[in-house]
Amino acid sequence: MKVVVTGASGFLGSRVADYLLSDQSPITVTELVLVDIQAPPKRNDPRVSSFALELSAPGSAEQLITKNVAVMFHLAAIVSGHAEADFDLGLRVNFDATRSLLDEARRTNPSLIFVFTSTVGVFGGNLPEVINDLTAVTPQNSYGTAKAMSELLINDCSRKGFVDGRIVRLPTVSVRAGAANRAVTSFASGIIREPLNGERSVCPVPPEQKLWLTSPEVVVKNIVYAATLPDDALGPWRAVNLPGFRVSVHEMLQALKVVAGEKVAALVSFEPVELISNMVASFPAKFDNSRALDLGFAVDKNFADVIRAYIRNDLKRPL
Amino acid sequence: MKVVVTGASGFLGSRVADYLLSDQSPITVTELVLVDIQAPPKRNDPRVSSFALELSAPGSAEQLITKNVAVMFHLAAIVSGHAEADFDLGLRVNFDATRSLLDEARRTNPSLIFVFTSTVGVFGGNLPEVINDLTAVTPQNSYGTAKAMSELLINDCSRKGFVDGRIVRLPTVSVRAGAANRAVTSFASGIIREPLNGERSVCPVPPEQKLWLTSPEVVVKNIVYAATLPDDALGPWRAVNLPGFRVSVHEMLQALKVVAGEKVAALVSFEPVELISNMVASFPAKFDNSRALDLGFAVDKNFADVIRAYIRNDLKRPL
Repeated sequence: MKVVVTGASGFLGSRVADYLLSDQSPITVTELVLVDIQAPPKRNDPRVSSFALELSAPGSAEQLITKNVAVMFHLAAIVSGHAEADFDLGLRVNFDATRSLLDEARRTNPSLIFVFTSTVGVFGGNLPEVINDLTAVTPQNSYGTAKAMSELLINDCSRKGFVDGRIVRLPTVSVRAGAANRAVTSFASGIIREPLNGERSVCPVPPEQKLWLTSPEVVVKNIVYAATLPDDALGPWRAVNLPGFRVSVHEMLQALKVVAGEKVAALVSFEPVELISNMVASFPAKFDNSRALDLGFAVDKNFADVIRAYIRNDLKRPL
Repeated sequence: MKVVVTGASGFLGSRVADYLLSDQSPITVTELVLVDIQAPPKRNDPRVSSFALELSAPGSAEQLITKNVAVMFHLAAIVSGHAEADFDLGLRVNFDATRSLLDEARRTNPSLIFVFTSTVGVFGGNLPEVINDLTAVTPQNSYGTAKAMSELLINDCSRKGFVDGRIVRLPTVSVRAGAANRAVTSFASGIIREPLNGERSVCPVPPEQKLWLTSPEVVVKNIVYAATLPDDALGPWRAVNLPGFRVSVHEMLQALKVVAGEKVAALVSFEPVELISNMVASFPAKFDNSRALDLGFAVDKNFADVIRAYIRNDLKRPL
């Protein structure tokens, strides 16, 4: 089948593409279109075409959603810290571009399976101790707000039969390879990735801050798995909180110490940054995973194993 | 102070205007601008100017939100049944027009107190038995969806200091005077109003259907009261479920019998309409009123008193 991935130059988008092209993919891909604001790197696979596309520009949705597209993974987004700094850009990309894709699906391809990556950042404010899929969404950041607005529209368009939407709310992903990004949770990868490269890392939140994490491997599998669910599996509300695990920054560094030694872990220092600390503290860090697990989504075992997988798969180093 | 009311030709909008102009108003109004898609009727009060305005047309927001407006009551909306039938129109008026008002407030008047009337129709799907202000919003209708999207944007704009938003979610209002409208809950007034005029009324939902109601008097007071709250009263989530009371259609007709006699109540017959029954059944009918009552909002005593107030105030008949 023909599959489209937006945000395909990004860390997760490029891995979703890798996974779709691999033998492990639960979807048989005959044609894969990869787009991002900067053209995704060329791939040595005849099924792949990749090009630069500004999703919020007029005509972009029409160009992407042709009648023969079976599944679209819509990952393109302005990340949390960037959306908080540029309200208009965040809303344009995180909401308006999504809306234009939904409009086009309704017009030309209403059976399109549309997988949307949302975020646990839709939660905020006065939260219960444990979040589940029916906890109220009261975001305290513009990124979560635009994602939550998109969720509502996707759900209603799915109810109306304009598209077949599936919304997965992503925990913070760690360990991300590559450079730091403007997500306010970027440090959650930086405090592991940089020390493993022998570099210092400054953590902007206090060590006792709890995070809700997933590994890249598991979240990529889960994003693709969402497309394989029967269209009625999610019921009247098509958003699901993907499984994650709860860990404090202190516990993350303990795991780093266990896996890579005391010297490596000692490369992390703490310099709280108020804007980041406050935003991160407003994100919930404890979820009830049961609905997602019942639906067949996967979950990581522990953070030490996540670090080991990063060393093995991304750094290509022996353990 | 200068106050603007949108949707001011409507049943609630015109009553909000009446109340603001009355001695009972908790807001001292020196200038009142009333707009609607059809010009609100002229009033014999030098403070009032009224004109027709299509809110989603370019320039409308700029025209309304000048620097000296202290409070805007944004009631203009495409009602539930109409929005369900015309998805694009519903989204344009119920969401895009709201967004353009927020944009303009941010540009020219960020201290504007912006009171937005939302709906208990934001709730739907798999609901807990009792709804409170932190129950997840998973609407099963396009009206509730656009209102919920607007809520998110208003809350975020308020957090960013672009506007001072207050969101009140309205129960179904009964008894509405005047003609039936295209709200799917229009029958909740029709089954009382028409029999009291000696006319037959056909109820499209079964008698055991439970509703969550407010009287026009109480809801108008509550809408205006929202503007008088301190700007931090609502905390990190600026939407409040206005108080209401739970009653079944059967109980409403029992109250009609008590107040107006058996012959009047017998003018109501039942012919279930599936689309309406399903939408109404998806609305919740039991709320925890405690947050709204703690904030000082008012609540009705019982439905028989609501009918009596309608007879006295709208029909101008002795009881």
